[in-house]
Amino acid sequence: MSQNVQTDVAIIGAGPIGLSAIFACGHLGMRCHVVEALSDVGGQCTALYPEKPIYDIPGFPSITAADLIARLVAQGRPFAPHFHLGRQAVKLTRAGDVLSLELSDGSTITARAVIIAAGGGAFGPNRPPLADIERLEGTSVHYWVKDAAVFSGKRIVIAGGGDSAVDWAIALAQHARSVTLVHRRDRFRCAPASLQKLDALRLSGRIALKVPYQLAAFQAETGKLEAIQISHLDGQREWLEADHLLAFFGIVSNLGPLRDFDIDLSGEQILVDPLTMETSERAVFAVGDVAQYSGKQPLIVTGFAEAVTAARAAYDRVFPGRPFHFQHSTDRGAPQLNVEACKVDTAPITAARTAASIET
Amino acid sequence: MSQNVQTDVAIIGAGPIGLSAIFACGHLGMRCHVVEALSDVGGQCTALYPEKPIYDIPGFPSITAADLIARLVAQGRPFAPHFHLGRQAVKLTRAGDVLSLELSDGSTITARAVIIAAGGGAFGPNRPPLADIERLEGTSVHYWVKDAAVFSGKRIVIAGGGDSAVDWAIALAQHARSVTLVHRRDRFRCAPASLQKLDALRLSGRIALKVPYQLAAFQAETGKLEAIQISHLDGQREWLEADHLLAFFGIVSNLGPLRDFDIDLSGEQILVDPLTMETSERAVFAVGDVAQYSGKQPLIVTGFAEAVTAARAAYDRVFPGRPFHFQHSTDRGAPQLNVEACKVDTAPITAARTAASIET
Repeated sequence: MSQNVQTDVAIIGAGPIGLSAIFACGHLGMRCHVVEALSDVGGQCTALYPEKPIYDIPGFPSITAADLIARLVAQGRPFAPHFHLGRQAVKLTRAGDVLSLELSDGSTITARAVIIAAGGGAFGPNRPPLADIERLEGTSVHYWVKDAAVFSGKRIVIAGGGDSAVDWAIALAQHARSVTLVHRRDRFRCAPASLQKLDALRLSGRIALKVPYQLAAFQAETGKLEAIQISHLDGQREWLEADHLLAFFGIVSNLGPLRDFDIDLSGEQILVDPLTMETSERAVFAVGDVAQYSGKQPLIVTGFAEAVTAARAAYDRVFPGRPFHFQHSTDRGAPQLNVEACKVDTAPITAARTAASIET
Repeated sequence: MSQNVQTDVAIIGAGPIGLSAIFACGHLGMRCHVVEALSDVGGQCTALYPEKPIYDIPGFPSITAADLIARLVAQGRPFAPHFHLGRQAVKLTRAGDVLSLELSDGSTITARAVIIAAGGGAFGPNRPPLADIERLEGTSVHYWVKDAAVFSGKRIVIAGGGDSAVDWAIALAQHARSVTLVHRRDRFRCAPASLQKLDALRLSGRIALKVPYQLAAFQAETGKLEAIQISHLDGQREWLEADHLLAFFGIVSNLGPLRDFDIDLSGEQILVDPLTMETSERAVFAVGDVAQYSGKQPLIVTGFAEAVTAARAAYDRVFPGRPFHFQHSTDRGAPQLNVEACKVDTAPITAARTAASIET
């Protein structure tokens, strides 16, 4: 699916603010391509709290995050945005006034402006604090379950104390050779019904509980996991033979590859001029939670206005020298439905696709 | 209805941005009193284009101005705002950190912060360019019709070329002694059906048309109107005996008394610091179309975010020294419906009440 496409504005992030930027750009006559690391649009609204009501979007006394996203998608649709889902923007280069955004699938988007609406950044798993653990990821160390069948007949160590850890311990106990659940506290944060099932499986010997224990080390001299060392809070250590480790330590978000974009940062945020939302890099804008300036409030409505500001400033980069004629939407009339349908590319396999199933 | 009330924040203007400021303040624990020159909430949305669809409010692919206003009112209701309708804010004074806002009905609102969301300013009639005409206003010179019965059996001169002028000429022709319609052009801007009625009444002698004529002078030696002088575009003048003049020259908006608030202006707008929306006067904020700063875009969504910014900055003025704990509405939960109902005071007679019926 690798491709090279050209557009007016490349938007990074399809959360609520990135989606609103599609309309803001479209209203000013600019076409957009949108890159999203997750496998669906909506950002945190979709991945973390789709059913949670939001009360502070003006005009909506109460709206669920999922409904807000659906409405923003519909609002942008007339401008036929092209979505690249399940891909990360990994590199930004410039040739004169043309910006090139390289995606994780090898595609390139060239544009006259880039609007970064990356929210808290790309989502990923919280890794266990075990040096060199990365080399086992996807083979014998896992942060989500893609296919439960691979654990059949195996010795499984599951680490974590929330719903994901408990529910997978219960589910895998049926077919695994052994399941050991390790948690650094002696209490689990999960549904009461799950706790009852867990206790029953512990009594019947199908699940071994190790609490309060932490992961301390691993042994994998053959290139695949052989054993996990755990340490009790009192310092006592023991080894557990294991074919697979499943660690459910929640998700974390960070700027990821955006860190290397050569734009001024403040921690995990991007510094912008609040009057234009332009970053330290010409024609590169940041809006929403990822953008930082004095007095910034991380609210959706603030991000909406920032997207409008960025679109206005992007106009001068996309159409240099073209006069800007301000027009209210009431005077301009309904957005024209573009004949070209809204395009969505999804990556065949993405880490992002399953991130939402990770414990939060 | 004159009264002295105390609150946290006094909001001037109940248009979409003023209404959104009620929620923004309420969310941070601040109570509001709202002053509105018109007899209804909604500002231009209600007075000028209630049925017009708006396309650029994020989350609403299309919404009529009236519907947006209804939703904003509902969203602010849990915070029990107190509305003072049909009154202008005429004077702002300060005693230390306490601001006093004097209203046109003699009431006073004392508050720790004032948020001016006056849009294009207060609406009022475009007056005819006749020196000293003000002294006859409300007795024999009118810019809207409060009670058609007062024109019964009288000689009426109506000036204007739009729907209001034509429709009132038709309506009053039935009971007035005479109706003369004066317009500076020879074409009327009105519904075709009205034009047909007007022509029929002209042919039957119930309405005299004077086009293209302008108002030139008036005679009122007894203290009430006696005659109106009109001038043809070729310079020819004539006097019309008249008991009443109805002038429908549209509405105009301006800062009005806000001009005297001792805050820095730029034309008909108020200069603010875009990071706080504070004006040159401490604890006095301006948001929405009335606020001006570099790069300002006069969009409703921009005003929404400005209201949030102003509310956050007002918090520090209303609760000096109190720490601010940021909280998303999703975490805070549904706004508590205040036991005290939302209060609305309407002035008994207001210019504002009829402004919407004036030709635009």
